[in-house]
Amino acid sequence: MTTSDFRKYAHQFADWMADYFENVERYPVVSQVKPGEIKSALPKAPPQKGESMDAIFNDFNRIILPGMTHWQSPNFFGYFPANNSMPSVLAEMLTATMGAQCMVWLSSPAAAELEEATMEWLKEMLGLPASFAGVIQDTASTSTLCAILTAREKKSGYEINSKGFSGKERFRVYCSEHAHSSIDKAVKIAGLGLENLVKIGVDADFAIRPDELEERIKSDIVEGKTPLCVVAALGTTSSTAIDPVRKIGQICDKYNVWLHVDGAYAGTALALPEMRWIADGLELADSFVFNPHKWMFTNFDCSAYFVKDPQSLIQTFTISPEYLKTSADDQVNNYRDWGIQLGRRFRALKLWFVIRSYGLEGIREKLRLHIGLAHKIKEWVLSDPRFELLAPVLLGTVCFRMTLPGLDEERINRLNEEFLNRVNNTGKAFLTHTKLNGKYTIRMSIGQTETREEHVVKAWELIVDEAQKIIYTIS
Amino acid sequence: MTTSDFRKYAHQFADWMADYFENVERYPVVSQVKPGEIKSALPKAPPQKGESMDAIFNDFNRIILPGMTHWQSPNFFGYFPANNSMPSVLAEMLTATMGAQCMVWLSSPAAAELEEATMEWLKEMLGLPASFAGVIQDTASTSTLCAILTAREKKSGYEINSKGFSGKERFRVYCSEHAHSSIDKAVKIAGLGLENLVKIGVDADFAIRPDELEERIKSDIVEGKTPLCVVAALGTTSSTAIDPVRKIGQICDKYNVWLHVDGAYAGTALALPEMRWIADGLELADSFVFNPHKWMFTNFDCSAYFVKDPQSLIQTFTISPEYLKTSADDQVNNYRDWGIQLGRRFRALKLWFVIRSYGLEGIREKLRLHIGLAHKIKEWVLSDPRFELLAPVLLGTVCFRMTLPGLDEERINRLNEEFLNRVNNTGKAFLTHTKLNGKYTIRMSIGQTETREEHVVKAWELIVDEAQKIIYTIS
Repeated sequence: MTTSDFRKYAHQFADWMADYFENVERYPVVSQVKPGEIKSALPKAPPQKGESMDAIFNDFNRIILPGMTHWQSPNFFGYFPANNSMPSVLAEMLTATMGAQCMVWLSSPAAAELEEATMEWLKEMLGLPASFAGVIQDTASTSTLCAILTAREKKSGYEINSKGFSGKERFRVYCSEHAHSSIDKAVKIAGLGLENLVKIGVDADFAIRPDELEERIKSDIVEGKTPLCVVAALGTTSSTAIDPVRKIGQICDKYNVWLHVDGAYAGTALALPEMRWIADGLELADSFVFNPHKWMFTNFDCSAYFVKDPQSLIQTFTISPEYLKTSADDQVNNYRDWGIQLGRRFRALKLWFVIRSYGLEGIREKLRLHIGLAHKIKEWVLSDPRFELLAPVLLGTVCFRMTLPGLDEERINRLNEEFLNRVNNTGKAFLTHTKLNGKYTIRMSIGQTETREEHVVKAWELIVDEAQKIIYTIS
Repeated sequence: MTTSDFRKYAHQFADWMADYFENVERYPVVSQVKPGEIKSALPKAPPQKGESMDAIFNDFNRIILPGMTHWQSPNFFGYFPANNSMPSVLAEMLTATMGAQCMVWLSSPAAAELEEATMEWLKEMLGLPASFAGVIQDTASTSTLCAILTAREKKSGYEINSKGFSGKERFRVYCSEHAHSSIDKAVKIAGLGLENLVKIGVDADFAIRPDELEERIKSDIVEGKTPLCVVAALGTTSSTAIDPVRKIGQICDKYNVWLHVDGAYAGTALALPEMRWIADGLELADSFVFNPHKWMFTNFDCSAYFVKDPQSLIQTFTISPEYLKTSADDQVNNYRDWGIQLGRRFRALKLWFVIRSYGLEGIREKLRLHIGLAHKIKEWVLSDPRFELLAPVLLGTVCFRMTLPGLDEERINRLNEEFLNRVNNTGKAFLTHTKLNGKYTIRMSIGQTETREEHVVKAWELIVDEAQKIIYTIS
C-alpha cells in the first residue's frame, strides 16, 4: 500500500466512521448470528498473495459487521457501558498511526508525561485524595491484581517476590459476595487461594456489612491467619451497591489491612459533587481504580489506577535489565514498573482529548442525564404492577424483573429469562441479567455516550410490549 | 461534537495520518525533549468548559508531537520494533469506532470467531504444530505469565488456585541468563520467588546450554525441589540468540516440565521456510508466544499465545459469575477465560487486515529484506577495523561496538555509551544498547515496516561518521 492509497482509504474509512456514528441505531444492538456462522464464512487458509483493500473492506462489511454487538449504540443497556466518544476516536486515529510503544519515558516522553498530567487532572475532577498517584492500566482486572500483589508484597516485606511463599503466610482477602469476579481471579493468580477469599454478607441494599467484615477479620486473626486486603466495591456489578468505604477503611486501619476500592464503573460519578458521598472515606484507601472506558467516554481500554504509596507498587514490579536502562531513569516515571506488562500503548492521549473536548461541565452534564434517565425507569418500574424493582437505583443502572401473581419464584425466573431473550432478539435494545437473592434480575445500564431520553423511552416501550406479550401467552 | 463535526475532523485527521506516513522520516527519531519539558507545557488543571477540537489538535501538534519517539520511522532501530502498517492502522480506525468490548462471544461474536480464525491462519503461516490453540494477548509479558501460571496450576492439580501455596511446592523455573525480564516479573507475580528462577549459562552464541540445564534440573530434584517450567528463548532480547528448542524439549519431556517458548520477536521469522530451523522441536513445547506487533506489521498490542492443552489454560483462569453467563457458552470460545483480563479489545481485526493485505508472500518479502539488510550491516562491521561484531546475526538485529586499540574494556564501554548518545542525539537514527559478556553493546534492530536499504545505508554512514569524530577527539 502506498501512502496515496492509504490517504484514499483513510478518507473512505473516515466517512465510514462518521456514517457509523450516524447510523449505529439502525443495526441490531446485539448480533443476531449463530455460533460458528462467522467462522464458517471466513476462508480456512491465509492468502498467499496480498489482496486489495477493497476486497478486505467489502468482507468486513459483509461478514464481520453483522457479527458485531454494537456497544456504541445508544440502545446498548447491557453489562456496564464501555463507551467511547467522537473526540476519543479522533485521538485513537493519531495513536494508531504513531504506533508508539510507551514502556519507558525515553520510548515516548510525551506519553509518560501526559499520563502523569491526565492522572493529576482526574484526581482533581473526582476529588480524589491529593496523596494518590495514578497510572493507566488496561482494565480493572489488572488494576485489582496490581493492588492485591502490592498488598502481598508489602505485607511480606517483598519476600514472596524474592523467595516465594513459605506456606506460613495464611493471607486472607475480603470482599462482599457481590464483588466482581476479577477479585476471585486476582486471588488465584497471586497464589493466595480462592478459599482465602472471604465473601462477606450484604445488607438489604447489597452493600457489604462492616460488622460482619470485622467479625471475620477478628476470627481469622484468632485462627492465626493474616488479613491482607479488603476490596470494597464502589458500585457492585450486579446492582451498583456502594460498600461503606469509611467504615471499611476504619476497620482496615485498625487491623493494618490494605484497602482497595473498586469503582470501575461508579468512579466516574465522583465527577459530580452531589455524588461524592458514595466515596466518603476514600482517603483511607491504599488504592482505587475506576475505568474512564466505562463511563467517561474514553475508548476501551483505559483503567485509571491510583495508589497512596507508589513506591510499594514500583517495588513490587520493578525490573531493570541493561537493555531498558536510560540516562533519564532517575528523573522520570518509567511506567513499565507500575504494572504487569512491559509494553504499553499511548492511552493518555484519548483521555486528554475527551477531558478537553467535553470539559468537566460537559462530562457532568452527560452523567446527570444518564442518572436522571435511570431514575425515570425506576419510576416506571415502580408504577407498573407488571414489574418489580430489585435494587436501589443510585447511578445509571436499574435492576428489575417482570412479575405475575400466582407464579412461584422458579417460574418467574424462567419467565424473565425468556423475557430478556425476547427483548434482545428484537435487536432494538440490549440488556443483560444477574441474580439478586436468587431472583433472575434484568439489568438496564444507561451510560452509552449518546443515550438520550428518546432511546430510554423507546426501550421501555419495547420492554412493556414484550412483557405484555408474555403475559398474554401465559394467561 | 456533532457527527458532521466529527466527519470534518476525521477527514482532517486522515490527511494528518497520511502526511505522517509520508513525513515521518523528517522528525527526530528519538524525542529531543528533556525530562519534565512536556508536563510543564500542559495546563495544571482540567478545563471546566469544553474546548474546540482545533485547540486540542493544535496543542497535540505543538506540545505532544515533539515529545514523541517515532517508532514508525524507518530510521528506528532501537529495542525490537513495534511496527505497524497502513492496513493495520486502517483496521484500528474501524475498531476504535465500533468500540466493542469483546470479553465473551455474545459481546461480539465476530471478534471471537475472527480471533479463532486468524490464530489458525498464523499456525499455518508459521508452521506451528496443528495441536496448538491460539488466543490474542496484549503483550508477551502477559503470555509468559499465563504460561507460568498454567504450569503452576497443572503441576499443583489446580490446588494453588483453590487453596494457595502450602509452602511444600518448592517449584523451580529455568531460563537462560539472557532471557527477557518479563520472566523475572512473571515468577514474582506467580508467587514462586525470584530465587527459584534458575538462570542457566549460555554458549559462545548466547544460547542456553542444555547440558547445564539438565544438570540443574537433576540437582534440584535431588534437593527435593520440583522443576516446573523452562522458558526457552527463540531470539533473546540482547542478541536474538536461539535456544535449542528440541534439546530443551527432550529434557522437559524427560522430567515432566512445562516448556514455554518465548519467540516474541523472532517468531514472525517462522513465516520463512528457510528460518524454520530456529524452532526445530517446537512440537515439544507446551506453549509458545510471538508478537505480531513486533515484526508482523500489526499495531501494538497484539501478542499471539499458543497452548497445546487449552483446557489447562481455561481451567487456570475460568470464572463464571451470573452476570457473564450466556446461552451460547457451551458452543463457543469465551476468551475471557483464556487469560488475565476480563475486558478485551477487538485485536483480531487489524491482524486480519495485515495478513490479507500483505499476503504470506508480502510478509515474507519484508522479512527477507530486513534480514538481508542486517547481514549487510554485519559485513560492514566485519570489514571495518573501527568496529567489532559481538554476536551472530541470525535475524534482523546486529550487535556491535566501536573499538580502538590500546584502550581497556572499561574505557571502551564508556566510549560506546558516548558514541550511542551522539548517534541518537542527531535524531537521524535511534539505536539502543545492551551488555554482552560485560561489553557495552550497540544493538541495531531492523524491522520497521518501511525500512529499506537507503535507510540502513544512511544510518551506517551516520554511525561511521560519529565513530570517526570520537576517534579524532581521542587521538
